Amino acid sequence: MKEASGGILAADGFVAAGVSCGIKPENNRDLCLVYADKRCAAAGTFTTSAFASPPVMVSREHLQDGRARAIVSNSGNANAATGQQGLADARRMASIAADALGVPSEDVLVASTGKIGIPLPMDRIESGIRTAAQRLSHEAATEAAQAMLTTDKVTKQCAVETEIGARAVRIGGMCKGAGMICPDMATMHCFLSTDARIAPHVLGPALREAVGVSFNCITVDGDMSTSDTVLILANGAAGNDEIPASGDAFVAFRDALVYVCQSLAKQIVRDGEGATKLVEIRVTGAESREAGRRVGRTVANSLLVKTAVHGRDFNWGRIAAAIGAAGVPVDPADVSITIGGLAAFRKGQPGEVSERDGDAAMAGDEVCIEIDLGRGAEEATVWTCDLSTEYVTFNAKYTT
Amino acid sequence: MKEASGGILAADGFVAAGVSCGIKPENNRDLCLVYADKRCAAAGTFTTSAFASPPVMVSREHLQDGRARAIVSNSGNANAATGQQGLADARRMASIAADALGVPSEDVLVASTGKIGIPLPMDRIESGIRTAAQRLSHEAATEAAQAMLTTDKVTKQCAVETEIGARAVRIGGMCKGAGMICPDMATMHCFLSTDARIAPHVLGPALREAVGVSFNCITVDGDMSTSDTVLILANGAAGNDEIPASGDAFVAFRDALVYVCQSLAKQIVRDGEGATKLVEIRVTGAESREAGRRVGRTVANSLLVKTAVHGRDFNWGRIAAAIGAAGVPVDPADVSITIGGLAAFRKGQPGEVSERDGDAAMAGDEVCIEIDLGRGAEEATVWTCDLSTEYVTFNAKYTT
Repeated sequence: MKEASGGILAADGFVAAGVSCGIKPENNRDLCLVYADKRCAAAGTFTTSAFASPPVMVSREHLQDGRARAIVSNSGNANAATGQQGLADARRMASIAADALGVPSEDVLVASTGKIGIPLPMDRIESGIRTAAQRLSHEAATEAAQAMLTTDKVTKQCAVETEIGARAVRIGGMCKGAGMICPDMATMHCFLSTDARIAPHVLGPALREAVGVSFNCITVDGDMSTSDTVLILANGAAGNDEIPASGDAFVAFRDALVYVCQSLAKQIVRDGEGATKLVEIRVTGAESREAGRRVGRTVANSLLVKTAVHGRDFNWGRIAAAIGAAGVPVDPADVSITIGGLAAFRKGQPGEVSERDGDAAMAGDEVCIEIDLGRGAEEATVWTCDLSTEYVTFNAKYTT
Repeated sequence: MKEASGGILAADGFVAAGVSCGIKPENNRDLCLVYADKRCAAAGTFTTSAFASPPVMVSREHLQDGRARAIVSNSGNANAATGQQGLADARRMASIAADALGVPSEDVLVASTGKIGIPLPMDRIESGIRTAAQRLSHEAATEAAQAMLTTDKVTKQCAVETEIGARAVRIGGMCKGAGMICPDMATMHCFLSTDARIAPHVLGPALREAVGVSFNCITVDGDMSTSDTVLILANGAAGNDEIPASGDAFVAFRDALVYVCQSLAKQIVRDGEGATKLVEIRVTGAESREAGRRVGRTVANSLLVKTAVHGRDFNWGRIAAAIGAAGVPVDPADVSITIGGLAAFRKGQPGEVSERDGDAAMAGDEVCIEIDLGRGAEEATVWTCDLSTEYVTFNAKYTT
């Protein structure tokens, strides 16, 4: 497996466009279209919010047959908490794109991100989709990635090439800022494409596995959004033998997909609102992967841990308190905490770390916190960022 | 029932002291002793953290017989995550106080709050306890309340007088800043006293009920501490007939206890790190009280909601997203959200609130958010504060 260029368009047989239709200010791109040269195997994972947005509902519906051919998405307005009108608007977005592309409406997946509770400006959406359909190209990956963004500072793209049954297969994708970091603009969106030949019933589990160890393992501020969406289209253009549900080919595909998803997920965390550091929390010795993830998430969401990281404070006591609060059975006498390779707390006893060494461990752009629960053989890794005053200032200033 | 003065010493038969023994800088009071003129019925509630601190373990042990006569507590050092040495030190704190007061060690309850992971300076603790024992007085309620504080800006006291069986009964207490707001100094401590005559097996349930609707319903930053402790001593000096486990006398006592605990809990939230506003979240129409509380807590812990309140932003979309993320079954079509009496979202549809009205609803020192889940008859109220840049600055600057 090696990294490739081209993001969402790294795989053969896909085109995209990113245009401005006037939802976001200053003519920023806000409408994105991805289109495959043939009908694709498709899969998606979505927010578990009880307030799931209308676009999420429509995409879920359109994925029921495991097939799709296009993704239409806008930024600047989440079309969430918008009632019946919102559902009608999400369906209409799909049907306008279907009309412009000449495909059935059920083969179009929809995603919206931005402010909550405001009806979509359907006239702008419609003209944006029609313009985008005319501008589809093999070179527009970055424009498409720009059109997804809300408060993100940078585009987030990744692609890899791997070999499956002696055929080169590519997987590429793009995503936007963790919904959890985004004010009203609640959403994590990720769109992926691949030219691998793979059936929907195999693509779905591979995607869920990859999402489970990437996007589901990041947190910026603990706020789950109404609109989180990950979509993948597989057009089979690579010509490999169809990937079975298990075995070497499946593992190669899944590992490549995991790589792309983890790269994109970490890009989201690095670009978290006000973030200055990437924090990796590796939990080992857990009784189950879920227990490990729960400990990792509790530490990652602790405001005291996040502010300590921001202040470069070698503050393992806050980490110990968060582990204790995670609601997972642990005995402090079994627990060890290592920060930047330094033993801060070892099997129930404070370690001896000099102030100078502690300061050095916290100084870099990345901080690695290792937690050994000493209870089992399972592990989990969670990524987060620090919490800065910029996060608070931004989210307090932003008004609907 | 009426408010009374005197805090922890409002009830007959208690004395207290608050002195400085050199744990906190600048000679701030850091050691507190509360002593009853006779052996009391006693009860406590404690953190559910798996990293419960040694003082929590010792107080739990000493409460097993439902009797106690004194509370000794220090601030500036939490004696948490300190291993076997910490447990020995917590026991020693109790035995030094027992020796100074001439009572059995098992009748002394212990609490410590402050930095985590640092051994207690036992020489200072010992001289502090001996000084405090000599200075016990009926007038030292405020000094005792000062000696509990860590990052709190103000002391927190409350007392009421109520009538039980034609006898005036007093309940008073004092507490310190929500452990959840406190950096390394993780702890919520509350000490209560009453001259009611009540048996331990009745006092315990009354305390748990009161804590359930007060301290367990506040959150500042979602970080549960290793040391949260609520203790109550009842010496029976009021001469009332012993309060039974149910009936009018129990209800009168419990309601008075609820009043004191809610007053103290709200004082903690108002004094939250960097807080400028008190936010009350009233959830109605819940299927269970626990479901209502879970929704309330998720909204209260949402950084996006807290920063919106700080920025005076009438941002009901963030509240809707938090409700959806709470993990409780809800249908947006049943949900209504009211802020400051204004219908922001009504049964699945955005309300029509002018910008001017919305601004006015967010302008005061208190913001009331009402959430009707439209699914049942249960309700729950949660209190929190806003999140300001001061919180982040303080917790990032603080170093161990």
